Amino acid sequence: MTQTTQIVLAKRPQGAVTDDCFRIERQALPALGDNQVLVRSLYLSLDPYMRPRMTELRSYTPPFELDRPLTGGSVGEIVESRNPKFAAGDVVVGMLDWATHTVHDGRGLRKIDRDAAPLPAHLGILGMPGYTAYHGMLRMGQPQSGETVFVSAATGAVGQLAGQLAKLKGARVVGCAGDDAKCAYATRELGYDACFNHRSETDYGAALDKLCPGGIDVDFENVGGAIFHAVFARMKDFGRMVMCGAISEYQDSTPQPGPEKMFGIVQRRLRIEGFIISDHTAGMGEFVTEVGALLKAGKIRNRETVVDGLEQAPRAFIGLLQGTNFGKLVVKV
Amino acid sequence: MTQTTQIVLAKRPQGAVTDDCFRIERQALPALGDNQVLVRSLYLSLDPYMRPRMTELRSYTPPFELDRPLTGGSVGEIVESRNPKFAAGDVVVGMLDWATHTVHDGRGLRKIDRDAAPLPAHLGILGMPGYTAYHGMLRMGQPQSGETVFVSAATGAVGQLAGQLAKLKGARVVGCAGDDAKCAYATRELGYDACFNHRSETDYGAALDKLCPGGIDVDFENVGGAIFHAVFARMKDFGRMVMCGAISEYQDSTPQPGPEKMFGIVQRRLRIEGFIISDHTAGMGEFVTEVGALLKAGKIRNRETVVDGLEQAPRAFIGLLQGTNFGKLVVKV
Repeated sequence: MTQTTQIVLAKRPQGAVTDDCFRIERQALPALGDNQVLVRSLYLSLDPYMRPRMTELRSYTPPFELDRPLTGGSVGEIVESRNPKFAAGDVVVGMLDWATHTVHDGRGLRKIDRDAAPLPAHLGILGMPGYTAYHGMLRMGQPQSGETVFVSAATGAVGQLAGQLAKLKGARVVGCAGDDAKCAYATRELGYDACFNHRSETDYGAALDKLCPGGIDVDFENVGGAIFHAVFARMKDFGRMVMCGAISEYQDSTPQPGPEKMFGIVQRRLRIEGFIISDHTAGMGEFVTEVGALLKAGKIRNRETVVDGLEQAPRAFIGLLQGTNFGKLVVKV
Repeated sequence: MTQTTQIVLAKRPQGAVTDDCFRIERQALPALGDNQVLVRSLYLSLDPYMRPRMTELRSYTPPFELDRPLTGGSVGEIVESRNPKFAAGDVVVGMLDWATHTVHDGRGLRKIDRDAAPLPAHLGILGMPGYTAYHGMLRMGQPQSGETVFVSAATGAVGQLAGQLAKLKGARVVGCAGDDAKCAYATRELGYDACFNHRSETDYGAALDKLCPGGIDVDFENVGGAIFHAVFARMKDFGRMVMCGAISEYQDSTPQPGPEKMFGIVQRRLRIEGFIISDHTAGMGEFVTEVGALLKAGKIRNRETVVDGLEQAPRAFIGLLQGTNFGKLVVKV
């Protein structure tokens, strides 16, 4: 009988997520039924969208259940299979429990080539965060040469690729990030033309006026709140705001109002559009081919933070919401 | 020498537009130069977008100049021509002064067939307001059979056609209007499934919950402010908000914040897009053909209010901003 170590949702957070929202448990797993597989987790992806799932609020993914393991995008190895599509030794990517082992029905698991790229890349730059950047920036934002693009959370798992893709299109790319080291990385390594520290900067409007003096054509929005409001006021005619996330708002206990002068959407012919990448899985193959080639050719840089040990996941997730990670955050299980 | 009677902008409004913002003048017009035409105005269109032009704020059209005639979409007759494209007796539609006569360089004037439709129709249902409804509803909102569509200012120059076009697509159509007679007209004559009076209704959210219990797929937004906020909160997944105008906000002296929980744009994959119909003139011919045929076949109804006399234009315009007109508002010069 296989034992699993798993992290369950012990209580729903009120405001900021705290340690006592999680509980580590050991559990005996049942024998496999027809079509089931036993997967051993290798890497677990930590992503901001998981925060809204911890509440009971309506969201695009069902809420995590109390006293049940949280789940997340993971890379794992098939240990035992009663599913004809998978064999022991296969490496797969898909949604697994925050656990050392998951019993899974195989649906949504995708086999990957162990040698194609380092395994954590399948959760980051070549996985859902990378595809989010690719779809949102290229298909929705459609930056043109000479345009000005703004990326909030410039060095995050999504932002780092979004900014680089816009740069490859010939746009001027400006971002913000949560500390000076991230800003330096953005401009020195990722090719951003400018980046401001949104923790030390007190006047976002003034910072944007200085760094984007002609206004903004494309906003790739990860942060929401005051940064979003300042960007909205500076969008140019026919500007596109790609709404990917709003991490600054996820832990608000009272909702904040939207930006002033929404009539500007008419005057400036703005398009503001939200998306969730799981609606667009059909285009994933094209993305992996294209960005995989850019990565192999050294035209795209990638930064990950790997935290060692499943039991570190809760603390790493709390840090992610506070912006203490650098680049894509994964847990080596 | 031709004398014209014209209405000039006497001062810029602070808050609500008042009578003393206008001045009526008589003026001698100069002799025509090369390529100029003298046009006698027959009908003048009054439209809400003129209100933002009375201020100095950045908008999509340049502000009206102080002590100069206001201008507006008009139908007129060529009286004298030194332009080879026009002859005396031609009837044209285009931007003319709020005046009995305008000296014009001919650019942007379009000849119309005097017998094709009643002349005011070229300023309303077959003119820019009609084309605004057509482009915004069909090309942007793209209502599908069985979807729920909401139109604020349901019986206005734009809303009356927007609602009917959505109905012809098989949508359930709900609107709001500023008095009970307009609501009755919307449901009895225009085919709306429901309409509420936004002056007597104190809780827009409750009204929408009752009339659109499953939420809203397409919002055709003419009003802005509190109605927009209530609609935003009730947009369904993949909803489209077509931002056409925000008449409730035009006379605000302090800007109001946007709706709460903008992260909903991501969660519900909303698309919020503003437009100005003058960016889309290339598609006007197709619109006139299609809606002209619907009108002739009796499948579309049209309501206009015709005010008699140029000197009534200021008072009629003030009424338009207060919602006292019914359907498309034109002045018979």
